Amino acid sequence: MAKRIITISREYGSGGRFIGEEVARKLGIAYYDKDIIGQIAEQSGLSPEYIKENAELSPKKGLFAYAFAGRDITGKSIEDIVYEAQRKVILELAGKEPCVIVGRNADYILKDRDDVLNVFIHGDMPEKTQRIMGLYNVEEKEAVKMMADTDKRRMTNYSFYTEQKWGKASNYTLCLNSSQLGYDRCEKIIMECGK
Amino acid sequence: MAKRIITISREYGSGGRFIGEEVARKLGIAYYDKDIIGQIAEQSGLSPEYIKENAELSPKKGLFAYAFAGRDITGKSIEDIVYEAQRKVILELAGKEPCVIVGRNADYILKDRDDVLNVFIHGDMPEKTQRIMGLYNVEEKEAVKMMADTDKRRMTNYSFYTEQKWGKASNYTLCLNSSQLGYDRCEKIIMECGK
Repeated sequence: MAKRIITISREYGSGGRFIGEEVARKLGIAYYDKDIIGQIAEQSGLSPEYIKENAELSPKKGLFAYAFAGRDITGKSIEDIVYEAQRKVILELAGKEPCVIVGRNADYILKDRDDVLNVFIHGDMPEKTQRIMGLYNVEEKEAVKMMADTDKRRMTNYSFYTEQKWGKASNYTLCLNSSQLGYDRCEKIIMECGK
Repeated sequence: MAKRIITISREYGSGGRFIGEEVARKLGIAYYDKDIIGQIAEQSGLSPEYIKENAELSPKKGLFAYAFAGRDITGKSIEDIVYEAQRKVILELAGKEPCVIVGRNADYILKDRDDVLNVFIHGDMPEKTQRIMGLYNVEEKEAVKMMADTDKRRMTNYSFYTEQKWGKASNYTLCLNSSQLGYDRCEKIIMECGK
């Protein structure tokens, strides 16, 4: 059956966000990424700035500290509150209209629907590093650090909330190496698989 | 650049072998799977029956026993001898002509070439189970056991010889869920990515 929703998970610097945006544009469907932040903020009562920094990333402390972070009387940490709000927003968006959703564990959150195409975009170190250096105007060393930090935090957040391994092929319908295949071809394949 | 070699790694029951064979046929290039066994046997001096049973699979004992299995005076276990012969045969085949190679850690063995498209095919449990039940005329329980055993042994062998994780998206250029995408579409995408 044709897929209504496309979720894109991605390594930092792999161009996954760009590819997702292009796919949405070419298909003429909604694209959700940063736009979700405002909605999660509204839903959770937290500031958009806080959500932007934390919604998809684990705190810098790592998984152990993460699991035992400060919790309120209900046992919920602030991360749990953000995650719950995020989950609710993503379920609502997916129910409303065909769309592309980038990141935010949307593949797992929407796992009970059968009209979702889950995509993981990754890439090779040299190409990812070059992309980050160009996009954020940073030196190579800083780009490599940004990549390692961000992917580690995405991975920790994903493992904690989904009990699945981030980047494991079997979680996704389709995984693509954007450095080897090129962005154009990735977009083409995703659209072919959504049919 | 166009890819000369396509390697297919696959979950048991996912149809990866069938897909690889079809891609080779459609592209009019060589297909290596069981045919390699005779060559590995010749190279290693072991019987084709032994190779068939062991070349791609770890012994049933698991990784720990695997690492400390009986070794000859050079420190090589019989599995190491098989693996060395397999490695040599795959390097030779890849150097000779464009081809599709299924399994046998070919993705890792050929990692220094830049004309290789590495594909991982996986699938959903119900479809894989049905396929195995039909192919081998076994009950569901037996099919599930065959799947778990074979994939575990493939995984252990791969981890031992490659120091990479079997089924991790970033090892491959392309990963496809054949249950969700269908065999035809998988073949089409692989051919598109080999261009």
